[in-house]
Amino acid sequence: MPETTPPTERTRVVRESHRGAYDRETIYKILDEGFVCHVGFAVDGHPYVIPTLFARVGDAIYFHGSVASRMLRNLSGGIPVCVTVTLTDGFVLARSVFNHSMNYRSVVALGQAALVEAPEEKLEALHAFTEKIIAGRWNDARQPSEKELKATSILRLPLTEVSAKMRVGPPEDDEADYVLPVWAGVIPLALTPGAPIRDEKCDAAIPTPAYTAHYKR
Amino acid sequence: MPETTPPTERTRVVRESHRGAYDRETIYKILDEGFVCHVGFAVDGHPYVIPTLFARVGDAIYFHGSVASRMLRNLSGGIPVCVTVTLTDGFVLARSVFNHSMNYRSVVALGQAALVEAPEEKLEALHAFTEKIIAGRWNDARQPSEKELKATSILRLPLTEVSAKMRVGPPEDDEADYVLPVWAGVIPLALTPGAPIRDEKCDAAIPTPAYTAHYKR
Repeated sequence: MPETTPPTERTRVVRESHRGAYDRETIYKILDEGFVCHVGFAVDGHPYVIPTLFARVGDAIYFHGSVASRMLRNLSGGIPVCVTVTLTDGFVLARSVFNHSMNYRSVVALGQAALVEAPEEKLEALHAFTEKIIAGRWNDARQPSEKELKATSILRLPLTEVSAKMRVGPPEDDEADYVLPVWAGVIPLALTPGAPIRDEKCDAAIPTPAYTAHYKR
Repeated sequence: MPETTPPTERTRVVRESHRGAYDRETIYKILDEGFVCHVGFAVDGHPYVIPTLFARVGDAIYFHGSVASRMLRNLSGGIPVCVTVTLTDGFVLARSVFNHSMNYRSVVALGQAALVEAPEEKLEALHAFTEKIIAGRWNDARQPSEKELKATSILRLPLTEVSAKMRVGPPEDDEADYVLPVWAGVIPLALTPGAPIRDEKCDAAIPTPAYTAHYKR
């Protein structure tokens, strides 16, 4: 696996090219922090974008295939998709309205997504979905049955054509605006977990597991 | 404006149809809480999905058009797009791996996005972008110049074909699994602002505005 994939014509970041990154370390870090991806596909020439859970395993990402169920019905081979993962890190308040921005990190992966057929590979993908969200949960919950595995539709997209784009740091204002008496800076954003809510049907004698009570991302 | 738009063949929620909603109140609430949308469009038959800031104004959404710049070069009319907004509300921990899920709210809007030409409409869209993120900021920051407005590329998508989909509440397990001694419930998620970071180039004598120091979403 190459540590850095040279960008293709389709993945090279053209606008604000200094914000582009193509190394596996940066790309994997963003993919592993995110858990919802937006999957784009076209039906009769019209684009659709559907959010779904995903996980990276090695140099591929897996996502729930039911999102593309209307396509899967018609295509047995691969489906052209774009999978995008976005993390929002902060609001950037500049001195001018024009230079207001966001700090963010995103990954765009293009390619042909294929339906996962082998039960062991489906199991591996489900394991990755669960463990990336809550490490330790897989072994506590009831494992998937053969019937459930059959009912699970998962797609695999190899990370062959992929790039990252991000914005970090303070606002960048026009030189002439720095004298303006306007507060400027960043309001950081973080996705934070709240106190766990026990299912009313969950016996109070069952202790709250540490991974839930002290959930950290 | 209709309070509820009947779903079309393309927007009707087919999978888990009880999670679909088509009333303007629900759709607007999700759109107004979100600030990043994922815009899908196709180039030479291949889908692309790009994250960008957006705002709703009346019964349309506006988003930065530079994301579709490669299309705009070729098309002067409308561009077929899908704009999706997703809010992640919590991880749903079921007794079985299979029934693990997410609580979320999402909106999918389909249609033809058109380039905004009138400077007044561009200004209205920029105002909405700024004020939806930080109410009060517009009047504090330097207003856009004529040159900046010209350099701003904004697209408008009327909300004619749109639906919401959401999952709320506790896990839903198979009847037989409720006896399992497995903790079940929800870990809520919220996007929370941190303490504002003043730009190093911002004069310490400039007070931190209330909308920044006590930022709430």
